Amino acid sequence: MQLGVIGLGRMGRIVVDRLLAADHDVVAFDIDDDAVDAAADAGAEPADSIPNLATRLDDGGNHKRIWLMVPAGDPVDAALEELEPHLEPEDVVVDGGNSYFEDSVRRAESCPAAYLDCGTSGGPAGAELGFSLMIGGPEDAYADLEPAFDAVATGPDGHERMGPSGSGHYVKMIHNGVEYALMQAYGEGFELLHEGRYDLDLESVASVWNNGAVIRSWLLELCEEAFREEGNDLGDVADRVEGGSTGTWTVQEGLEQEVPLPLIYTALGERFGSRAEDGRFSRRLASRLRYGFGRHDVPRR
Amino acid sequence: MQLGVIGLGRMGRIVVDRLLAADHDVVAFDIDDDAVDAAADAGAEPADSIPNLATRLDDGGNHKRIWLMVPAGDPVDAALEELEPHLEPEDVVVDGGNSYFEDSVRRAESCPAAYLDCGTSGGPAGAELGFSLMIGGPEDAYADLEPAFDAVATGPDGHERMGPSGSGHYVKMIHNGVEYALMQAYGEGFELLHEGRYDLDLESVASVWNNGAVIRSWLLELCEEAFREEGNDLGDVADRVEGGSTGTWTVQEGLEQEVPLPLIYTALGERFGSRAEDGRFSRRLASRLRYGFGRHDVPRR
Amino acid sequence: MQLGVIGLGRMGRIVVDRLLAADHDVVAFDIDDDAVDAAADAGAEPADSIPNLATRLDDGGNHKRIWLMVPAGDPVDAALEELEPHLEPEDVVVDGGNSYFEDSVRRAESCPAAYLDCGTSGGPAGAELGFSLMIGGPEDAYADLEPAFDAVATGPDGHERMGPSGSGHYVKMIHNGVEYALMQAYGEGFELLHEGRYDLDLESVASVWNNGAVIRSWLLELCEEAFREEGNDLGDVADRVEGGSTGTWTVQEGLEQEVPLPLIYTALGERFGSRAEDGRFSRRLASRLRYGFGRHDVPRR
Amino acid sequence: MQLGVIGLGRMGRIVVDRLLAADHDVVAFDIDDDAVDAAADAGAEPADSIPNLATRLDDGGNHKRIWLMVPAGDPVDAALEELEPHLEPEDVVVDGGNSYFEDSVRRAESCPAAYLDCGTSGGPAGAELGFSLMIGGPEDAYADLEPAFDAVATGPDGHERMGPSGSGHYVKMIHNGVEYALMQAYGEGFELLHEGRYDLDLESVASVWNNGAVIRSWLLELCEEAFREEGNDLGDVADRVEGGSTGTWTVQEGLEQEVPLPLIYTALGERFGSRAEDGRFSRRLASRLRYGFGRHDVPRR
Repeated sequence: MQLGVIGLGRMGRIVVDRLLAADHDVVAFDIDDDAVDAAADAGAEPADSIPNLATRLDDGGNHKRIWLMVPAGDPVDAALEELEPHLEPEDVVVDGGNSYFEDSVRRAESCPAAYLDCGTSGGPAGAELGFSLMIGGPEDAYADLEPAFDAVATGPDGHERMGPSGSGHYVKMIHNGVEYALMQAYGEGFELLHEGRYDLDLESVASVWNNGAVIRSWLLELCEEAFREEGNDLGDVADRVEGGSTGTWTVQEGLEQEVPLPLIYTALGERFGSRAEDGRFSRRLASRLRYGFGRHDVPRR
Repeated sequence: MQLGVIGLGRMGRIVVDRLLAADHDVVAFDIDDDAVDAAADAGAEPADSIPNLATRLDDGGNHKRIWLMVPAGDPVDAALEELEPHLEPEDVVVDGGNSYFEDSVRRAESCPAAYLDCGTSGGPAGAELGFSLMIGGPEDAYADLEPAFDAVATGPDGHERMGPSGSGHYVKMIHNGVEYALMQAYGEGFELLHEGRYDLDLESVASVWNNGAVIRSWLLELCEEAFREEGNDLGDVADRVEGGSTGTWTVQEGLEQEVPLPLIYTALGERFGSRAEDGRFSRRLASRLRYGFGRHDVPRR
Repeated sequence: MQLGVIGLGRMGRIVVDRLLAADHDVVAFDIDDDAVDAAADAGAEPADSIPNLATRLDDGGNHKRIWLMVPAGDPVDAALEELEPHLEPEDVVVDGGNSYFEDSVRRAESCPAAYLDCGTSGGPAGAELGFSLMIGGPEDAYADLEPAFDAVATGPDGHERMGPSGSGHYVKMIHNGVEYALMQAYGEGFELLHEGRYDLDLESVASVWNNGAVIRSWLLELCEEAFREEGNDLGDVADRVEGGSTGTWTVQEGLEQEVPLPLIYTALGERFGSRAEDGRFSRRLASRLRYGFGRHDVPRR
Repeated sequence: MQLGVIGLGRMGRIVVDRLLAADHDVVAFDIDDDAVDAAADAGAEPADSIPNLATRLDDGGNHKRIWLMVPAGDPVDAALEELEPHLEPEDVVVDGGNSYFEDSVRRAESCPAAYLDCGTSGGPAGAELGFSLMIGGPEDAYADLEPAFDAVATGPDGHERMGPSGSGHYVKMIHNGVEYALMQAYGEGFELLHEGRYDLDLESVASVWNNGAVIRSWLLELCEEAFREEGNDLGDVADRVEGGSTGTWTVQEGLEQEVPLPLIYTALGERFGSRAEDGRFSRRLASRLRYGFGRHDVPRR
């Protein structure tokens, strides 16, 4: 099967490599020429623009299949705008990025081709194993792309059509919300172990947990790796957690659906709190109030 | 009415002053001689030891009434041990400090005199208005002390017998748990106002809220005072909230009774978090995990 | 001063009454004729339509001052649309409802008159005392309306200009977020008292707290009233908390500003949770998982 | 290697079977005769009392190795009391149950034999794979039991000495706290999917996540199983989560160490809340307060 891949960053490149490894033909484009060259070295056919990529896909007389792996937001719309004149109804476009699901619904409605929104989980660390793909959009288009999904995912079990347009990115959004909470939950456990009564080897704790314990998971394997690589006290890793867009969307959807998500919210709030460079105003006020009624000393900075 | 007051710190001294202002006779003792001298200057009869205080209370042939205002924990037991040989069943001892309610139950059982546990709220800032007193113990003893409670509290409405021994400190413990949550709730609101879209005068916000708004309260008046005295950004007040024992007891009691207290717990947790000098381990691990699966940059320190 | 008041529900009627009591002239309109008649009986000049109200305000040759007290959302836009042909730049429109602040910014931009967004706190129960008014918009318009604000608020201290358009409703939105958290914080405390070790009279607890305790507040007075009127176990009051729009907006703004609001969020989530008619799916799954690994019995319904 | 196993419930029986499968000799006792008979049928040597079990272990002239798998609390102390007269310093006792770590420290101090506290995770569902064993106590005793641990655990990687006495049960306690939070985190995600915008097949979501997604885990496999066996809406599974002792201990230890555990606490609180048969008092009060200030209708039951 021939596919065009637009966007050759870390994730896009893995998509290319996995497609090639499964004997698919790939036409590859990125705004970074070096990334295109590298993909070409790996076996892809290079394109020097999006129109050029679209043209090259015409060759076989088949309909076009195009996989977008560009950053969520404007870059997706920009790529689609360039693609649009070249798209026919029988073509299929896949957006494999972390797009907001309502954007995907909108794009599916306006795109001349069939449009699949594809949530992709597994991260760069999943390159060898393959990804988990949550896909929304028309059934025919999903069926048409199955050989490609088999290659990019862990295999046939690693992809599934969730439902109509938007549902793929919707499920991925909530996946990420859960991910925030899981990370923070492990964090709480290891913080208590680290601050607690025993002098413990945390890599060893994670390792024994990963062998048969109820809480074993891939994230826990990554905890084990973290302690192995950074040391028992995590070395110079700072107390600052970046990111947050998909978690924010998850919480917003919870508000919309009136579903309480206290763990996910708290995990997101910890990220925000870790980035409060000037201290948390709420706590500074609480500290001052202790003086207000109780004349307790106020720590000053 | 004649009373002995043991413990002349900030709170004990207010007790003395309010009793004197209501024309009660006070015999006063503290391990700090200067505090005794100051109380004597204010009109109290000084005692140079606990036995001496007990002896001076015998004078009128009445039973003894003794108010303890010493730090919670061992100092209460130490004072009671010294008092014990001088106590008769008709005497009354009041513990006005922040004792743990189970300690109060234990002390009430072993004390030769009637024992009242008296939760005291209002803080040094409440000196002029009078305190709120939540009292546990025998009804007779409570009735006997009413004139003193009238003087120390805001008046007859400012004190109440909650129930048997321990109930006064129990109610005060939970009062403090609620207090933590209220402080943090105001803190959240003002943090959002401070970080938010408008350039607001927070003292003015607090002031207009204190005049008629649903959330008006004494703590909100103290917020207003804090902004007036520290400035709109709270000046050099540090992000470090001390204290926590009564809040911890409240959460422990919630665990015992299987009552969820998420707001009180979260407020207590913010205090703990504000004191994590080396950063929060949980968040440092979460940040490292983002690299683990996603190869996101890890902020280092 | 003459004012038109549109919207004569519970809150609007209080506005009318307080304006009349301060010797202002009121032209009153509501889509409910009975409400107009009742306002007329109280001393207002009745109008039978919004254009009619506008015409009546022209009488004195002064510019028009109009106070909207209609439900947030479409009714505000509908009223403004009817008013628009009658408005001049020197006129002033006040929106005293619970509008979303961004709607107020938009309306201020499109309204031919000066537009003040006025957050109103105190509720129907504040009728006698007067309200707390948080006002956003042009300084001149605020100054022009001061006599009316003096009357509707608790007095001159009960209203304040927060800043430019939208800031009044912005501050009110966050006020409400804090309100949710305060209510839930008191709720936690009384739940623990109710489920706890002592058989307590909760009205009496609330009363003694309201006299001098750190956590005294108007909401705590309302707790006292609730126990007095409903009984110590709150009688047949259901575990179902309605409402939530302003709290939801507050949380959304916290997400936007990346300010964690765990107490406000948790309080909002308790409302959502109280309305989950079919049980909480999250907990049902957790219960089933306990069987999954541990073969614990699964409670069935 | 010969071992005595006391306690032949679900978990104890798995220990017996795994030891037998690895060609160890097992002397088995339980207060339930049928359980002893069943173990005998499986190949264990039956004992009719604890002293009888101890005597039978003497046979080979080797020191005794005894594995307790009885419910945490008094049953452990009762078994140890019966064992005590038969124990020598060179013997080894393992407590494989969910004991509180401070009890294990106390028992290790008073036990005449070497004492190992062994946290066991994996549950009955882990019978085939083997367990994760977190072990505290003397190094020699741990080394002596390694062949048995190899058999009961997933293998050599499935057990580890954490540190001195108590550390095994300490690590297991915190494991369980994390477990509560993970379960609730998945619960939140699936609740939002269930209540959300798309009509999704949750088993299919769990399945695709388990194939390559960042949040894949054994608990997520159990979610998949739950949806497969109970249906997409979990059938008649009730909103009631039992259990909570190890989570409570974890939170208590967090209080002691001043480590905030908001996710674990919230997950525990959801369990408590799910068991509030009469509704949550906190929310009933909050609902009534909405009437107090705003005259909002109060839902009654």
